[in-house]
Amino acid sequence: MLVIGESINASNRSVAEAIARRDREFVASLARAEADAGADFIDINSSIKNGSQEYEAETMEWLVEVVQGATDKPLAIDSEVASLIEAGLGKYQGKRLIINSVTAEPERLASIGSIAAEHHAWLVALAMGTKGIPTTVEERLDACEQIMAHLTGLGLKAEQIFFDPLILPIAVDSTQGIITLKTMEQIKSRYPGAKTILGLSNISYGLPCRKLVNRAFLLMAAYTGLDAVILNPLDTKMMSLIKVADMFTGKDASCRGYIRAHQKGTLVD
Amino acid sequence: MLVIGESINASNRSVAEAIARRDREFVASLARAEADAGADFIDINSSIKNGSQEYEAETMEWLVEVVQGATDKPLAIDSEVASLIEAGLGKYQGKRLIINSVTAEPERLASIGSIAAEHHAWLVALAMGTKGIPTTVEERLDACEQIMAHLTGLGLKAEQIFFDPLILPIAVDSTQGIITLKTMEQIKSRYPGAKTILGLSNISYGLPCRKLVNRAFLLMAAYTGLDAVILNPLDTKMMSLIKVADMFTGKDASCRGYIRAHQKGTLVD
Repeated sequence: MLVIGESINASNRSVAEAIARRDREFVASLARAEADAGADFIDINSSIKNGSQEYEAETMEWLVEVVQGATDKPLAIDSEVASLIEAGLGKYQGKRLIINSVTAEPERLASIGSIAAEHHAWLVALAMGTKGIPTTVEERLDACEQIMAHLTGLGLKAEQIFFDPLILPIAVDSTQGIITLKTMEQIKSRYPGAKTILGLSNISYGLPCRKLVNRAFLLMAAYTGLDAVILNPLDTKMMSLIKVADMFTGKDASCRGYIRAHQKGTLVD
Repeated sequence: MLVIGESINASNRSVAEAIARRDREFVASLARAEADAGADFIDINSSIKNGSQEYEAETMEWLVEVVQGATDKPLAIDSEVASLIEAGLGKYQGKRLIINSVTAEPERLASIGSIAAEHHAWLVALAMGTKGIPTTVEERLDACEQIMAHLTGLGLKAEQIFFDPLILPIAVDSTQGIITLKTMEQIKSRYPGAKTILGLSNISYGLPCRKLVNRAFLLMAAYTGLDAVILNPLDTKMMSLIKVADMFTGKDASCRGYIRAHQKGTLVD
């Protein structure tokens, strides 16, 4: 499973503070730590509370420069604003690239979809339209269908699209775990070429021992076809379970990745 | 999910030694520990290496008496020999009862199936015939079909049957995890009234950090419809993940069981 490190996000207080004082070393060590912990991509999000678009664009450029200087892992440029994504891409010298994200909203699909087509990027597509996260499988699949039609019209291949079936907290509605997983199964069945991705933490909102809930959900999601996950790779228990999931789902068919992780001492029981 | 405590098994060395010296307190405390840790049933297996059938029957009677005296949890009488099961039942005063187990082998189905019918017991049925564990989904389902036909012919209801789709080690063949899970999905789809059960530990045979592998598999199995599991309930991490699985699969739709476990301090991260 692809792991996208989520830590370099301006909505995290310590990151916002490091950004404010342009603390290169803080951001660089975070990026190195994510890479060392096994992240395949480093997500970069510069959206700052009450920040001007200009400041956020400058910040995106700065973050891309700093992280590129710290690790050779590819980046996930994380914004819902086309101009911010372009700001990040202006500084990015890597080849592999994730753009995170679009929804079925036509304007964003057109602008961000075109950027993804031009850069041969992988594009995260959230299974929702303009009215927030739908509560049913059908509505989420409707959004996926609109996204797929629009993006392939722009020249993207199914293989470039990472659908996020989205998660709502089970503490509010306990059927939501199954709804996300059924949406994922349907996405994999309807669009065999497309990939799937999830950010996990929403599932456990409002519950105690949240990491336990997130980990359990990751394993069920792996079974239903999860290809990539956005998380904190420094969560060693989660990373250990991902190694197990990869064995079960054929991504580590020889069990070699798991045994190597054991030999390196990175498996945590 | 129903939890069947597996510890009182004469193939465990310390249990075999306690049996040899007829150490009531050892067995009673094991039963109490399983009950306190959340086991819904206590499994009792008296099969002793090189033991005579007579000695195993006496042992089964003794174990049933001792465990009944220690806890009011119902029992799972665990043997593939009809006369041993009858020995255990002769001493059993509880109402709820699991008999563990039959295969598709006609003689065992006839003898043990009749006992289960007579006692209105739940019956564990392994998805295999006489030739060992089949490697394919289809062969396991064939065994289930023979079992279902035979047992319903004896008057058992589907609701009394707990199919075990069986597990082979993924270290030998990494597709075996998926084969077990696909078998389970098919069993739930073909026999909506029937239940499913698994013993987990075989999945991780030959791998390091076995508990990690067992736990991960439990969660995937929960998603595919696992109703009951045979394990050591003193594994608190596993028991915590079962609480999470119950939230996701609608068995704890209000999340109250999970929150209560947290309040009791039994959730382990």
